[in-house]
Amino acid sequence: MTAPLHEAHPTSPGRRLPDTQQGMRRRNLSRVMHTVNAEGPLSRAAVASRIGLTRAAVSTLVDELVRAGLLDELGPERPGRVGRPGSALALSGRGPAGIGAEVGVDHLAVCAVDLRGQVRARAVRQGTNRGRPSEPVIAELTALVRQVVTEAEREGLWPAGLAVAVPGLVARDARTVIRAPNLDWHDTDLGTLLTGDAPLTGDLPLTVDNEANFGGLAELWLGDGTPRDFLHVSAEIGIGAAVVVDGRLLRGTRGFAGELGHVPVRPEGPACACGGRGCLEQYAGEEAVLRAAGVEPGEGRVGLLAERAAEGDKDVRRALRGAGTALGIALTGAVNLLDPETVVLGGALAGLAPWLLPSLERELTRRTTGPARAVTVSRLGPEGPLLGAAHSVVRGVLDDPAAVSGRQ
Amino acid sequence: MTAPLHEAHPTSPGRRLPDTQQGMRRRNLSRVMHTVNAEGPLSRAAVASRIGLTRAAVSTLVDELVRAGLLDELGPERPGRVGRPGSALALSGRGPAGIGAEVGVDHLAVCAVDLRGQVRARAVRQGTNRGRPSEPVIAELTALVRQVVTEAEREGLWPAGLAVAVPGLVARDARTVIRAPNLDWHDTDLGTLLTGDAPLTGDLPLTVDNEANFGGLAELWLGDGTPRDFLHVSAEIGIGAAVVVDGRLLRGTRGFAGELGHVPVRPEGPACACGGRGCLEQYAGEEAVLRAAGVEPGEGRVGLLAERAAEGDKDVRRALRGAGTALGIALTGAVNLLDPETVVLGGALAGLAPWLLPSLERELTRRTTGPARAVTVSRLGPEGPLLGAAHSVVRGVLDDPAAVSGRQ
Repeated sequence: MTAPLHEAHPTSPGRRLPDTQQGMRRRNLSRVMHTVNAEGPLSRAAVASRIGLTRAAVSTLVDELVRAGLLDELGPERPGRVGRPGSALALSGRGPAGIGAEVGVDHLAVCAVDLRGQVRARAVRQGTNRGRPSEPVIAELTALVRQVVTEAEREGLWPAGLAVAVPGLVARDARTVIRAPNLDWHDTDLGTLLTGDAPLTGDLPLTVDNEANFGGLAELWLGDGTPRDFLHVSAEIGIGAAVVVDGRLLRGTRGFAGELGHVPVRPEGPACACGGRGCLEQYAGEEAVLRAAGVEPGEGRVGLLAERAAEGDKDVRRALRGAGTALGIALTGAVNLLDPETVVLGGALAGLAPWLLPSLERELTRRTTGPARAVTVSRLGPEGPLLGAAHSVVRGVLDDPAAVSGRQ
Repeated sequence: MTAPLHEAHPTSPGRRLPDTQQGMRRRNLSRVMHTVNAEGPLSRAAVASRIGLTRAAVSTLVDELVRAGLLDELGPERPGRVGRPGSALALSGRGPAGIGAEVGVDHLAVCAVDLRGQVRARAVRQGTNRGRPSEPVIAELTALVRQVVTEAEREGLWPAGLAVAVPGLVARDARTVIRAPNLDWHDTDLGTLLTGDAPLTGDLPLTVDNEANFGGLAELWLGDGTPRDFLHVSAEIGIGAAVVVDGRLLRGTRGFAGELGHVPVRPEGPACACGGRGCLEQYAGEEAVLRAAGVEPGEGRVGLLAERAAEGDKDVRRALRGAGTALGIALTGAVNLLDPETVVLGGALAGLAPWLLPSLERELTRRTTGPARAVTVSRLGPEGPLLGAAHSVVRGVLDDPAAVSGRQ
């Protein structure tokens, strides 16, 4: 039994550890962590039988993980049984934490998630970031991160990494925002801004990614019965998608995959900032929907749309029907190309789903053959990107616990 | 050094052999075959150094492959060098052969490809299959397969498997054609038809797949400098695509991925047989182009279009410009979703590329941001699906030589 980690836990980013004895040990540490994560609390014997190693080998691994503060021993379990009682193992609630951050167009948010997946600290600042230079925005975000880290440390946690979700295209270096049109940022190196003059927290590993990608990963990791092949569509101001194939995020050659917002819906339609015409965002983006509904732009408009639609406002309902139709046309193309098991509506779209879905599903059904495609609504909604960011750090710890075990 | 096969040779279908001693031996046999395929002729010592096994271990593996007729010893090499001269190893030109077959709308074709990648036998029957029941078509195909197998056997080859390319959706059982609209076939089990009453050649393994998929795989395996992330667009009567991500074909949940022909281009456009409106096939499919060019449908029409376009026929050129525009709109959506490194035009489109490309590239450039996407033309052209089918069998032998070594 030496199945590599990324086979045993195919939802992980697939970091491949080297095939040396050291690599084997690190993989086995990860297998213990993932087993306890999936099925814990478990005794050492139960872990050993799950992963096919000897009890002795597992005990050595577990001792190392307990010493590193990644596993907790909960004390004797099932005392009625014969033999020395096994101590149940659980992921630590006081060990490393994933720090997730989100640069939204209308808000900033940061949270800390422990290895058990619980949000343990949280900070939000409302207010538009549209058109603001990146420096003051990132300075505010840094302050929120410090606040959340301090709060997490008070609970006995220590930050294992910081992942930042942004509404734009991110280079494959996972630091540089190439283009975030709704912030008006271009070639912005968040790495320097976040770790430059006043290093945030020493050598805290940093990952920057598109918010739609983190939203899709959150759905994969935290969704209720989400399959391993799906298309996750989300919206804040723009519209993005995450393509998940066989439990992995499809990133594309430049890291730009999932730009559903610029799929042409009506090729001779209104001009789009991207240079094209009739892109999906021109029909289903927040600005287009507000315009069609006769609602002034501003903060909190998605909530207002949902409120008015629920009250029966005809203009709002018509605008959302139109957005649903455009989404259905663009998704027909995506479904024909990718043949996903389901389409999941997340982000701001989740809250508007009751009024988007009928027209969306009508287009999808009449334009695609075969059995109707399931369209589901994410229960994470607008929380997806932030949670996905924090959980990506936690998954990184489960995938390679040895990499953080000396760091706290 | 125990990297699993699908890591060392990521272009293979990724069959994963079990992690037992037997599995290890089979993987090592495959590594020898792939190494000789990629770099041969090579001495045993050179193979050993390439794959990081001892000379003795490699000799045992090589002896087994030579005995099975999969490797040839070409005789002493470089006699001027010190020490016992090594015998150069090459893939056998008399061993197993991949039998590829294609059910086209206007033709049937079969070929045999040896382990060295050479086409050694070939048979074609022109004539429309549109609307014909599947039984007589498959009976004719079977006759062609027998003819090619006989010819290959005369050259000392033996068939290792049969792969059939069809212009339609194939179930994941790799036997059943769910829907081939241009043949008017529905739920047609080619497995039974090909191996039923008169078994073709004993237990010859059979794989049926969409012609666009085999075309894309041919491009991956045989293309000149084709990257590992690309979108392969092909056409016969319909239009299909193969999505290749990181050297692997993206098949989709039901095996239906790549249905580019039914991506909506103008959502209120002409009705399509698929139930949608304004699908790409309504603008760039063979029938639509012939209609726009004022040319009667019939056999060999793609050649006729190319001829007339080359002569400067204005109607034909305008029709091809329109098809290129529609392709550019549909590909904009695909590029935005998948971010491939290149788009490759194959199949019948390759021969029409000079007149399709200008308008196609114009749409793609003005509708997508960032550096212009490379659009290239496959040098395999209409041969792609047939060659891809035959080579898929050959790749299968390279991936697991032990599976066939007892079969001839």
